[in-house]
Amino acid sequence: MSKRFELIENYLINFLKEETFKTGLNGGVVGLSGGIDSAVVAVLAKKAFNDRLLCVMMPSHYSSSSSVGDAKELAEKFDLKYEIVEIAALLEAYSENQNSTNLRVGNFSARMRMSILFDISARERALVLGTSNKSELMLGYGTLFGDLASAINPIGDLYKSEIFAFAEYLGVCDSIVNKPPSADLWEGQSDEDDLGYTYAQLDEALKEYVENRLSRDEMIEKGFEDELVDLIITKIYQNQFKRKPPIIAKLTSRTIGHDFLYPRDIKL
Amino acid sequence: MSKRFELIENYLINFLKEETFKTGLNGGVVGLSGGIDSAVVAVLAKKAFNDRLLCVMMPSHYSSSSSVGDAKELAEKFDLKYEIVEIAALLEAYSENQNSTNLRVGNFSARMRMSILFDISARERALVLGTSNKSELMLGYGTLFGDLASAINPIGDLYKSEIFAFAEYLGVCDSIVNKPPSADLWEGQSDEDDLGYTYAQLDEALKEYVENRLSRDEMIEKGFEDELVDLIITKIYQNQFKRKPPIIAKLTSRTIGHDFLYPRDIKL
Repeated sequence: MSKRFELIENYLINFLKEETFKTGLNGGVVGLSGGIDSAVVAVLAKKAFNDRLLCVMMPSHYSSSSSVGDAKELAEKFDLKYEIVEIAALLEAYSENQNSTNLRVGNFSARMRMSILFDISARERALVLGTSNKSELMLGYGTLFGDLASAINPIGDLYKSEIFAFAEYLGVCDSIVNKPPSADLWEGQSDEDDLGYTYAQLDEALKEYVENRLSRDEMIEKGFEDELVDLIITKIYQNQFKRKPPIIAKLTSRTIGHDFLYPRDIKL
Repeated sequence: MSKRFELIENYLINFLKEETFKTGLNGGVVGLSGGIDSAVVAVLAKKAFNDRLLCVMMPSHYSSSSSVGDAKELAEKFDLKYEIVEIAALLEAYSENQNSTNLRVGNFSARMRMSILFDISARERALVLGTSNKSELMLGYGTLFGDLASAINPIGDLYKSEIFAFAEYLGVCDSIVNKPPSADLWEGQSDEDDLGYTYAQLDEALKEYVENRLSRDEMIEKGFEDELVDLIITKIYQNQFKRKPPIIAKLTSRTIGHDFLYPRDIKL
């Protein structure tokens, strides 16, 4: 297992370096939440960029009180350069937040953090590193143009349950590895409560459906609960829009997103 | 010409309705800047959604003083429902804006507007309508995860010079049709000054390169200036990242953006 993680680690460090340096930029910027996904990205990016990595902690009064402490502990252990930008003033400056739902304020918060990260990345001449894992991306458990937005994402093809094991391998602090996964958009939020299943259950089902291309019936025959299978299939399809650019109404022979489809790093 | 615009108009109204109603949502939300692109989208969306269209004006102290007035004149003429959300307080709430460049504050402003639009769209159970035209999208003249972000974009396949003629056909007020194109991110900003050419020049070259697939040499032989040809080709390639989702490091057999590539509106 650790041989596999060693390969993944080297591959992802090279991915970060290559994708960044070919743009002409100098390094990376990552939002450090105190959670496990951003911790893994920060540790990988430190190895790729050394002191050209900048971590940004962006707590709000909705974040769990331990989040910044956990992020600082990681920063100390791995000698990560960081800044703290509180987002409370931004949340207060938008009056709709006063009479809104948890979900709307959470999405707005995620978009404030994206805006700060991209602004700081421009100042640093660096790329914003994504921290969404494959479980979240497949289930659409994230904010479009918020935490789902980045320039490059080293962990978007790793399921959450793999992230836990990989984090341990990388030496991420126990305080981070052992706490329950949370989007931390409001106090006490729990991914697994929101989703209704543990990541272990979700990932096992996702892998069969996505990687092994089992059908709904084959999965149920294999012993998966109907409700779990229907949940993941529904979420995958319902949230496809979060994985694609906006749709453009087609009028010409070459339309962006329809038939003008070059790779992101196409060269002259 | 007006027969062609009549066809385009009907097609785009149907596009707006179909793409919206199949998501289960009720209507559209559009940011009305006082510029021609959002005016065209608003007029089309009014015909698609009637009173389920909400326009949002989001001026800042950097906007031109006539912008809100022009937007209100359009709203009156077409009986558009609107709200005004000033973004000054949001810009002040982020301390980096005090010692920043025009470009960074402009990008941050565009992202604040995106965040407000998406929040209001959640409140209204509506889709955010994109207002980027094909010239801007091809040249990358827009803010990633800012004004380039939307759910659906009815005008992303129309060049800016076509937007002018289409706006006249639709009856958009002269005050909007006749003013020089501007991203309006700072007072006196002019798209054509920023880009170094008029949209008429840029679009003529873009059409040959994008639609007619002429090579650089063929374009120069046809009489286009070297500098213009090189500018559009460089910008198209340099900004391809603004037209694609974040890159994910590939680790499995089915990776989002590599080989997990279903259409945005895939159904079960």
